[in-house]
Amino acid sequence: MSGLAIHEARLLGRLHALGQIGRDGENRLTRLAASDTDRAGRDALVGWLREADLDVVVDRIGNIFGIWRTHANAAEAPLLLGSHIDTVIDAGIYDGCYGVLAGLEVIETLRAAGLTPVRPIAVAAFTNEEGVRYAPDMMGSLVHAGGLSVEEALASIGTDGTTLGAELERIGYAGVAEPGFLRPHAYVELHIEQGPVLEREGVPIGAVATLQGISWQRVVMEGTANHAGTTPMSMRRDAGYAAARVIAFVNEQARKAHDPSVATVGCIAFEPNAINVIPARATFTVDLRDPDEARLAAGEAALAIFLDEVAASEGVSVSVERLARFSPVAFDAGIVALIEQAAAGRGLAYQRMTSGAGHDAQMMARMAPAAMIFVPSLGGISHNPREHTPQADLVAGANVLLDVVACLADAKGDRHGYGS
Amino acid sequence: MSGLAIHEARLLGRLHALGQIGRDGENRLTRLAASDTDRAGRDALVGWLREADLDVVVDRIGNIFGIWRTHANAAEAPLLLGSHIDTVIDAGIYDGCYGVLAGLEVIETLRAAGLTPVRPIAVAAFTNEEGVRYAPDMMGSLVHAGGLSVEEALASIGTDGTTLGAELERIGYAGVAEPGFLRPHAYVELHIEQGPVLEREGVPIGAVATLQGISWQRVVMEGTANHAGTTPMSMRRDAGYAAARVIAFVNEQARKAHDPSVATVGCIAFEPNAINVIPARATFTVDLRDPDEARLAAGEAALAIFLDEVAASEGVSVSVERLARFSPVAFDAGIVALIEQAAAGRGLAYQRMTSGAGHDAQMMARMAPAAMIFVPSLGGISHNPREHTPQADLVAGANVLLDVVACLADAKGDRHGYGS
Repeated sequence: MSGLAIHEARLLGRLHALGQIGRDGENRLTRLAASDTDRAGRDALVGWLREADLDVVVDRIGNIFGIWRTHANAAEAPLLLGSHIDTVIDAGIYDGCYGVLAGLEVIETLRAAGLTPVRPIAVAAFTNEEGVRYAPDMMGSLVHAGGLSVEEALASIGTDGTTLGAELERIGYAGVAEPGFLRPHAYVELHIEQGPVLEREGVPIGAVATLQGISWQRVVMEGTANHAGTTPMSMRRDAGYAAARVIAFVNEQARKAHDPSVATVGCIAFEPNAINVIPARATFTVDLRDPDEARLAAGEAALAIFLDEVAASEGVSVSVERLARFSPVAFDAGIVALIEQAAAGRGLAYQRMTSGAGHDAQMMARMAPAAMIFVPSLGGISHNPREHTPQADLVAGANVLLDVVACLADAKGDRHGYGS
Repeated sequence: MSGLAIHEARLLGRLHALGQIGRDGENRLTRLAASDTDRAGRDALVGWLREADLDVVVDRIGNIFGIWRTHANAAEAPLLLGSHIDTVIDAGIYDGCYGVLAGLEVIETLRAAGLTPVRPIAVAAFTNEEGVRYAPDMMGSLVHAGGLSVEEALASIGTDGTTLGAELERIGYAGVAEPGFLRPHAYVELHIEQGPVLEREGVPIGAVATLQGISWQRVVMEGTANHAGTTPMSMRRDAGYAAARVIAFVNEQARKAHDPSVATVGCIAFEPNAINVIPARATFTVDLRDPDEARLAAGEAALAIFLDEVAASEGVSVSVERLARFSPVAFDAGIVALIEQAAAGRGLAYQRMTSGAGHDAQMMARMAPAAMIFVPSLGGISHNPREHTPQADLVAGANVLLDVVACLADAKGDRHGYGS
């Protein structure tokens, strides 16, 4: 227990202010990585970091860090908080932004209270967590953790044909710091659940102990464009029909598997995409997730076999590109226990859980002890304008983060069993 | 038998010249209705019509007519030939263009031979036959025949959000003549088969006696956008999966039906179309064709029932928009017989057949006796850059058209049993 409390109005005010940046003519919120609207969001965040008198550092992949360090603690490994501020298309205002702004809020609260942590405390906004415009997702934290070279990441070609490196230069967020320059003592990420569990259980705080594995693939099926009226069904090589069979299969396989298995086809395109022409090419994405690595691999294998079957029966060719592949993650048991203690200390119900979504924390777990705090998402809705978390839960989550940070930032590794 | 022959090099030269107009950077041929490339193709055609000293008339829907009339025959109803010069995306060079340029070729040949037909002979290039950019297809001939008001047609919104009327104004082909101003004595259209029948049978000339009915619909399925990782399969309303089930059903129903039944889903779009978001909306087109009206209607009914089933089982909403609906057509028996006689007269094998594709002739059949002549398409391939018809077949078809025209243009209605 820090005995402190975050400044509710400041946190909620910034959260709603950021949520107004990147609205289109139909009031749809979209801040795709390294876009003009992402730049506007980044500018607002950097402004707040500077107001809080933090050292602002941008690295080569565009990750933004706000660092509170003192003469006394500058030599220590910093405690890092963070998440992301890029969004999906037509997004809600909480995903990612909540964790970044709560991290800033916690630092300001501790500083205002005159605390002198024995190690620096920093907050990070990682580039391209959503992966909508550039693959893979969680790119900024992956590069920071050394899982992907910065050159490879900057060379990523976007869905709009742009190159990430050029876009970061264009919006002014191609920094000079080498990714990974900040090696954290520990990493803690506060995030909305984006799922239905906490609301259904009536529990305000989730202590995230594990995270699902993710497999992203892009499938291209190629047949023959031909006249829709004159080509007998028996003589067709219809890439669109072949794709439809695969989309149905992917969904039905996941329904048959154990409950946590999920599968989604979110993107599709036909060519030439004309009403009276049999599709010559169908391109679609497959998103498979599972907390069990063996089951995730089995799902990938089943898809590969079915693709070959459809290719043979429909006379189409198939090519598959792996866009992202991350194994399930187990977070640091010590920090997870600390989160539970902090929740208990504030009289908040909590439960251990698995994250169904990918998060920057899974990348940071490669280089430091890490864990996550979840708060409820009404209806489990996310990646949607109706994404919502009640204010009381937003405040409770930030105060739990505050207590965890207060503890970790002056922990010498001999308290709460942490680090032992 | 006219005893004449068309000028092969002139016809083939124009066909290849027109086929070079509207190529993109990858050498793909695309002249969508009322686009800049369509304008370029129209300009070339009008140039050739003027070189042939024909009266050029453009009507309000952009149909182009080249009319050969004399003082002696100006009072008679003209014999009309024609087709279209708009194309699909990444098209071949023969579809439509062959019929228009062969019509012009026949007029020039008759004129050069000093013939004096008892009625005017005209060639038409009808607007938006393909229907790729604006629906319905065969629009120009449909409006000419009085099946659609010119105001309604000009108000059509394109796949790119443009309005046909504004685009015709922009490219300079919004004429002043009232559609239907030319009431033909008869209409004859020469076209590539776009199907495999003639090549398979080794027959160079098809006398088209009937034409398939066509049903075009646009289906929109709406579910809920949600996070691909955190939303259990059981809690999803996945519009993309629902669409995939319908696409598979449409194809499999047609395979089960009698051989001539065909069904195609050529266009699709998901929203928001993001790899990690469950599709909130799927929009796709359905193209059903059948020479039998009852079977076509049964196919539409089966689709409607299945859409309701999927909507109920997947928790999505469905809306259907009818884009086009044309019943099967029987062409004029007298002209069909005349085509067979003309082929026989030149020692060419021929056969009666059904058209699987929609053509302007089916619209013109509403206002005048009409029929079509088909020539082989190698491999039945069309709406594809590999669309090809051997030169000998192109020439043979044009010469059969020449003889049919020579006969119809001076027929008083008492020869060949035509009109009796």
